[in-house]
Amino acid sequence: MQTPLNELSAAEAARRIEAGELTAEALAAACLERIAERDDAVRAWAFIHARQALAEARELDRTPRRSRLHGVPYGIKDIIDTESLPTEYGSPIYSGHRPRADAACVALLRRAGCLILGKTVSTEFANNHPSPTRNPHDPAHTPGGSSSGSAAAVADRMVPLALGTQTGGSVIRPAAYCGALALKPSFGSINRQGTKLVAESLDTIGIFSRTPEDLALALEVLSGRPAPDFASFTGKPRIGLCRTPRWQDADAATQANLEQTARLLAQAGATVTDFELPAGSDQLFDRHGIIMGFESARALAWEYMTFPEQISKSLKPRLDEGWQVTRADYDAVRETARRCRRALADGMRDVDFLLTPSAPSEAPRSHESTGDPVFSRAWTLLGVPCVTVPHGKGAHGLPLGIQLVGPFDGDSALLGWAHWAAAALSAGG
Amino acid sequence: MQTPLNELSAAEAARRIEAGELTAEALAAACLERIAERDDAVRAWAFIHARQALAEARELDRTPRRSRLHGVPYGIKDIIDTESLPTEYGSPIYSGHRPRADAACVALLRRAGCLILGKTVSTEFANNHPSPTRNPHDPAHTPGGSSSGSAAAVADRMVPLALGTQTGGSVIRPAAYCGALALKPSFGSINRQGTKLVAESLDTIGIFSRTPEDLALALEVLSGRPAPDFASFTGKPRIGLCRTPRWQDADAATQANLEQTARLLAQAGATVTDFELPAGSDQLFDRHGIIMGFESARALAWEYMTFPEQISKSLKPRLDEGWQVTRADYDAVRETARRCRRALADGMRDVDFLLTPSAPSEAPRSHESTGDPVFSRAWTLLGVPCVTVPHGKGAHGLPLGIQLVGPFDGDSALLGWAHWAAAALSAGG
Repeated sequence: MQTPLNELSAAEAARRIEAGELTAEALAAACLERIAERDDAVRAWAFIHARQALAEARELDRTPRRSRLHGVPYGIKDIIDTESLPTEYGSPIYSGHRPRADAACVALLRRAGCLILGKTVSTEFANNHPSPTRNPHDPAHTPGGSSSGSAAAVADRMVPLALGTQTGGSVIRPAAYCGALALKPSFGSINRQGTKLVAESLDTIGIFSRTPEDLALALEVLSGRPAPDFASFTGKPRIGLCRTPRWQDADAATQANLEQTARLLAQAGATVTDFELPAGSDQLFDRHGIIMGFESARALAWEYMTFPEQISKSLKPRLDEGWQVTRADYDAVRETARRCRRALADGMRDVDFLLTPSAPSEAPRSHESTGDPVFSRAWTLLGVPCVTVPHGKGAHGLPLGIQLVGPFDGDSALLGWAHWAAAALSAGG
Repeated sequence: MQTPLNELSAAEAARRIEAGELTAEALAAACLERIAERDDAVRAWAFIHARQALAEARELDRTPRRSRLHGVPYGIKDIIDTESLPTEYGSPIYSGHRPRADAACVALLRRAGCLILGKTVSTEFANNHPSPTRNPHDPAHTPGGSSSGSAAAVADRMVPLALGTQTGGSVIRPAAYCGALALKPSFGSINRQGTKLVAESLDTIGIFSRTPEDLALALEVLSGRPAPDFASFTGKPRIGLCRTPRWQDADAATQANLEQTARLLAQAGATVTDFELPAGSDQLFDRHGIIMGFESARALAWEYMTFPEQISKSLKPRLDEGWQVTRADYDAVRETARRCRRALADGMRDVDFLLTPSAPSEAPRSHESTGDPVFSRAWTLLGVPCVTVPHGKGAHGLPLGIQLVGPFDGDSALLGWAHWAAAALSAGG
């Protein structure tokens, strides 16, 4: 049986487009059809202009191939500026807003011959107030946030690739909840000009997909980091099993799933050792909010002063708290983070990657919460690259994810190992 | 003889406003009058809406005092978004652009009861293509760039305070050329949401003024770093005299001026020792352009792809070069910078600040160049705070500056020492 076009990986779709077996237009049409069928239930998309997208796809079909992802459609989180589609940052304050320019990451995709299929739903200013998006596996459950739409759209096979942003756990968590893969690259990997900054020392543009290869090809386009030679990642990786100081926050299914994953990867040839985070790292889990609060209060100062009544009841107290943080406290957490970054770099010399939970549980059954970013916050603050790979099921049968964490700027190798791990788990699980 | 209102420092003006001896409206009117007299020659301002500014000043006169700078007018570099005034980033691509929101730094000023007097001229995308602005001391000379208008406006007593941005030497150099003070704070001090990013790992919002106290009060409003207790900076600072690996780029007047400054400060009680930058730092002077090129090519990707013919002949080749930089080379320079940052922090344990040139010479006699940022680039890349204080004259009688460089996040103390040094030089010079 043939794979429906909307279910193709980006790499496979691009190969068929290059071979003349598929057009960008037919691929976009298949994705738009899936969205038309499913998005009343999933609500992953903020804006789609189908006719415009198809016209742009036809234009790409007439254009010489510009990259290994030529003709592939993307969903763009609506926290990222697009000239040709509205950009509302998940807030009524920006109702109908049309940016003057594309964000740098959008321009980089267009430069590579990729198609901007539409804008995916962001929670309000990429924060924690729930969006209307539903988990595609069960609409009673949250898709996670803040990149709710990108995670749900990719997991539901509406589009092979999507961009999101992570300030706490806004890429890895929703991907794990929805059963997608995602990469939060090393801090500084993908240019943020034209992305609404919420906490500029943390905000990181990330990528959602259904295969590690697609993450690597998209990262190549967006950051200039070459995709790894996947065939060379066949050896015996040294894995640090990192339960983190917050292991007790993970539910039984998540704990058991991670332990089982470690056993499966050891059976596949890996050397797995327990990995303790450097002294002081436990503070990062608790104090991430000091940095995010201080910075987001300032980043959203205009909105807070001008339209206080249009800021949600979830966000308002977070901004109020951010204004209460002193500069000295903020600087002290930044200094702790810098010290931990150096210590982690030293500690990771003997491992290829860390294995750790993507989230404390499967997606909670709730429309009032986007879930807990506890297993992402510290990694975001440390700036290291993280990949979540779907593996296992939670107590209610929703997807779980395992998280692979690499050394700073080691994104390409981490994706190579993610490919190896996904294959090993698929064979052994 | 009374000081004309437009020549008052921000601190003195705010004290008089608080005492009821001066209104924000009268202060704004005096600044607008100076601008009306002088700006045909200096061309420091991109946009001024005098009636709107006066109305906002009257509103501030009716408002309870919100900060120690309540009622004080600012010029805002036109690379920073303002809702109430056009924002063109120095480029015809953005002709007539009206942002939807104020940048965070503008909102922070409004929150503190400061007045946005108008937008000051930026070079094209805060890069090196000269703007129409002239040096207020001699219109045949450049004011420097890229914060050309902010430096010229403050030096010419059109406004007591202005904001600029520095990616290479775009705050310190124009201030030195025009005879103003300026602070480039530690990286991460002033929130950049709503500022057009050119090279996000370098871009730093800075402040222009005519006194160290004004820099400190403005930094307090903008970053939350408390202004120092200036009276406590009366001791005997330990100064590292840092000629830098590019000392031969400084002209004879600049070299003699720095040596004489060191002698004067030693006479005032300082201990002055020669300071060598950490091994490898010489690379930072040369390789800053690798980071700036890589990032600015991406940050301006939309403009480059959409309006190539509207990008200047100065900027186009810089962006072309930026696209040629490999990710590996870019990452390597970032790693060198991180290593040098740690080494500099260690090396500065025994000094309070470094003394180094602000620019290689007085402002060049040219409208084709904004001068050489060589004595700022490395400090920007190192992220450390820098203050330029006017002292001495160049070969043609234009102002020279001396640059004080502090340890990372030591902005408040650095401003305390800048106050001490300015007083010592004023007494001794």
